[in-house]
Amino acid sequence: MTKIQLIIIGNELLNGKITDQNTHWLANFCYEQNLELTKVQIVGDNAKDFNCALNEAYQNSDIILTSGGLGPTKDDLTKSMVASFFNKNIAFNERAWKTTLSHYERVGKEVIKEHTEYGMIPEDFFVFYNPVGFAPGLGYVTEEKKLIACMPGVPSEFQSMFSEEIFSFIQKQRQVLNHYKHVIVKTFKIHESKIFSELVPGLWDELEKFGEVSSLPHAAGVDIAVKLTENDLEKIQLKEKEVLNLICNSNLKPYIWHIGPESIEEVIVQKAQEKGLKIGFAESCTGGLLAHRITNVAGSSSVFWGSIISYANDVKINSLNVQESTLNDFGAVSIETAKEMAIGALNALNVDIAISTTGIAGPGGGSVQKPVGTIGIGFATKESHGSKLYHFRGNRESLKFSFSQKALFSLLDIINKI
Amino acid sequence: MTKIQLIIIGNELLNGKITDQNTHWLANFCYEQNLELTKVQIVGDNAKDFNCALNEAYQNSDIILTSGGLGPTKDDLTKSMVASFFNKNIAFNERAWKTTLSHYERVGKEVIKEHTEYGMIPEDFFVFYNPVGFAPGLGYVTEEKKLIACMPGVPSEFQSMFSEEIFSFIQKQRQVLNHYKHVIVKTFKIHESKIFSELVPGLWDELEKFGEVSSLPHAAGVDIAVKLTENDLEKIQLKEKEVLNLICNSNLKPYIWHIGPESIEEVIVQKAQEKGLKIGFAESCTGGLLAHRITNVAGSSSVFWGSIISYANDVKINSLNVQESTLNDFGAVSIETAKEMAIGALNALNVDIAISTTGIAGPGGGSVQKPVGTIGIGFATKESHGSKLYHFRGNRESLKFSFSQKALFSLLDIINKI
Repeated sequence: MTKIQLIIIGNELLNGKITDQNTHWLANFCYEQNLELTKVQIVGDNAKDFNCALNEAYQNSDIILTSGGLGPTKDDLTKSMVASFFNKNIAFNERAWKTTLSHYERVGKEVIKEHTEYGMIPEDFFVFYNPVGFAPGLGYVTEEKKLIACMPGVPSEFQSMFSEEIFSFIQKQRQVLNHYKHVIVKTFKIHESKIFSELVPGLWDELEKFGEVSSLPHAAGVDIAVKLTENDLEKIQLKEKEVLNLICNSNLKPYIWHIGPESIEEVIVQKAQEKGLKIGFAESCTGGLLAHRITNVAGSSSVFWGSIISYANDVKINSLNVQESTLNDFGAVSIETAKEMAIGALNALNVDIAISTTGIAGPGGGSVQKPVGTIGIGFATKESHGSKLYHFRGNRESLKFSFSQKALFSLLDIINKI
Repeated sequence: MTKIQLIIIGNELLNGKITDQNTHWLANFCYEQNLELTKVQIVGDNAKDFNCALNEAYQNSDIILTSGGLGPTKDDLTKSMVASFFNKNIAFNERAWKTTLSHYERVGKEVIKEHTEYGMIPEDFFVFYNPVGFAPGLGYVTEEKKLIACMPGVPSEFQSMFSEEIFSFIQKQRQVLNHYKHVIVKTFKIHESKIFSELVPGLWDELEKFGEVSSLPHAAGVDIAVKLTENDLEKIQLKEKEVLNLICNSNLKPYIWHIGPESIEEVIVQKAQEKGLKIGFAESCTGGLLAHRITNVAGSSSVFWGSIISYANDVKINSLNVQESTLNDFGAVSIETAKEMAIGALNALNVDIAISTTGIAGPGGGSVQKPVGTIGIGFATKESHGSKLYHFRGNRESLKFSFSQKALFSLLDIINKI
């Protein structure tokens, strides 16, 4: 299989000024397109570390992608570093400059003198068009038929250049010898080690006969994956059936919540669409994350009506009709408030299911009775309502995520029961 | 300075099943604590790639951190891989097992037989306590006084183990020879290349006399940073004054929105606190991201009252009092709707400033007049209101981010004017 490595260049990633958004995107893209991403290296803006990374990537992969360092400022060193790695001079390239000019046309601005730097690229390199930015991408195929492709680091530029330009270039060059597929079964309500030691002790070994097995525990459960490889698509489909039979007819069955790579958000949107359900939230401690996660799914607008984020008690009272006495008697973080929030959202948003979250994400606001990490989750439908308290550990950001994860699984439970 | 490298182990990161959340956190931590994170490598669960990464890290750094692969399942290979790298056997370790047991006590569950695997660690290695999970961390100091520390990959475990256990171990060992500081000036409304070619052509060279200069363009502007290094804290403070004088008294002045490393969210919360302002949102296309970003800031509850996420037009009408005729005549994505949403949120949430977002994040829903990437942003205060349309490029996720970024800067503008 075609092996790909990514080298991310930029001090700003190593000193925390920005977060890498391209690795996860590329990993997903490669996974879906049968390309094998084998390694990612993040290095600073200096020739020594870049050379070391490129040297290693060059030895151990077929395609080397770099991101970042293609801008016109002095700390943008990628062009000079790849040029010197392959012993090339840098020269003006008509096509590179045209790529930059076409972005000027798109945005309707005047050409800046310093931008002519964009037209300078290593000799013998070719140009990848940038559909959304100024910097042209660079490509070079070595004598051993290895491809080096240098892209801008800005996520929208990296992602559109790779998917629209570089991937089709790769497709033309590579021969697909093997098909592969990850069979993924997602479970919850059971601990990873219990699965393979007590529940289905022989399953791992059984599955390994079909391919590489992996198990991924996370905040909301355990995903089990088996990687099937065959030179024949039909054989893969047969194997997939056998693997699913093995897993789904085992003691694991009651713990399975989904078969496939889809996220909890995607499964919720899909099932709500199938059942024609309208969904709404009343969020306090998740602070919009619940709605943000659902609205990341394309097409979520067909089932997600809205969310009332009531960070202040005033908003809980005025927009969600939570009783002042409930807040006074039981506190904002309580099953009583959670329940009233859910009912309030059901009515205010006029939906079929409402989920509420009210908890303490910290670092402040905790007490002995209700420490940081406590959350009340409520639900309401036209037929019933209820709420429950849960406890999690972590910092503010990871707690918000755990809270939202638990709330989404509560929502899925209710959708499944309708 | 102490050089740190991080090796992240896990197929699930390279096939897109999970997103790395530790690099950004560690990068920030190191930045704040004067440690130099020089490289991050993400490798799959196999000895060959791990050895290659460890070999490289071992040669070029003083501290090597690994994350992941410490669980009790068969694809957790870190312990055996580091053991073989340092020629050690794996044996039962009392302290390691006690660490696991103490987590059992915390969560009040029965011990699982397979978990005794957690007590097995490489000989001559010591144990780092895990404050929030089962897996003990591993440590080893080589003859050259290099530290290898292996941590679980789960973000809450990685982060608490590093900050509470490993960092204090490092502090005891290292001698602080140099102080350093990044002076950061954040600008907007001007393009990166225009800054250094036209606005302040000599500035980069001037700044470079003080230390390494970097420039970080992003969706909302350009951050300029100068890294100062001195063996004396007072000298650094003097240099910082000079650097800030140079930048702030230059033509760049009107484009500076903040001095310091703080994010736009943090600056908003801080300034709103200073001015005693209550903030609320009416979100459509940002789908909760705006509120999520503000509520990521600890203490945001003192200024952020809430957000009404009105994905459906019904909710815009019922919860935000948008006129049905406005939606019919101008559409949901229009300056008219944006304005009414902002006014609606101001009243419904009873805040001093409300910001609204209504746009098309795609992939569907675009038209020739209003393509994907169009957004209307509105604002309302007790004294005035208004709205404006903007256009961005990108996929659904990056558009949601750009939308939220623009909305936050609109909010900052209004806070500054009050």
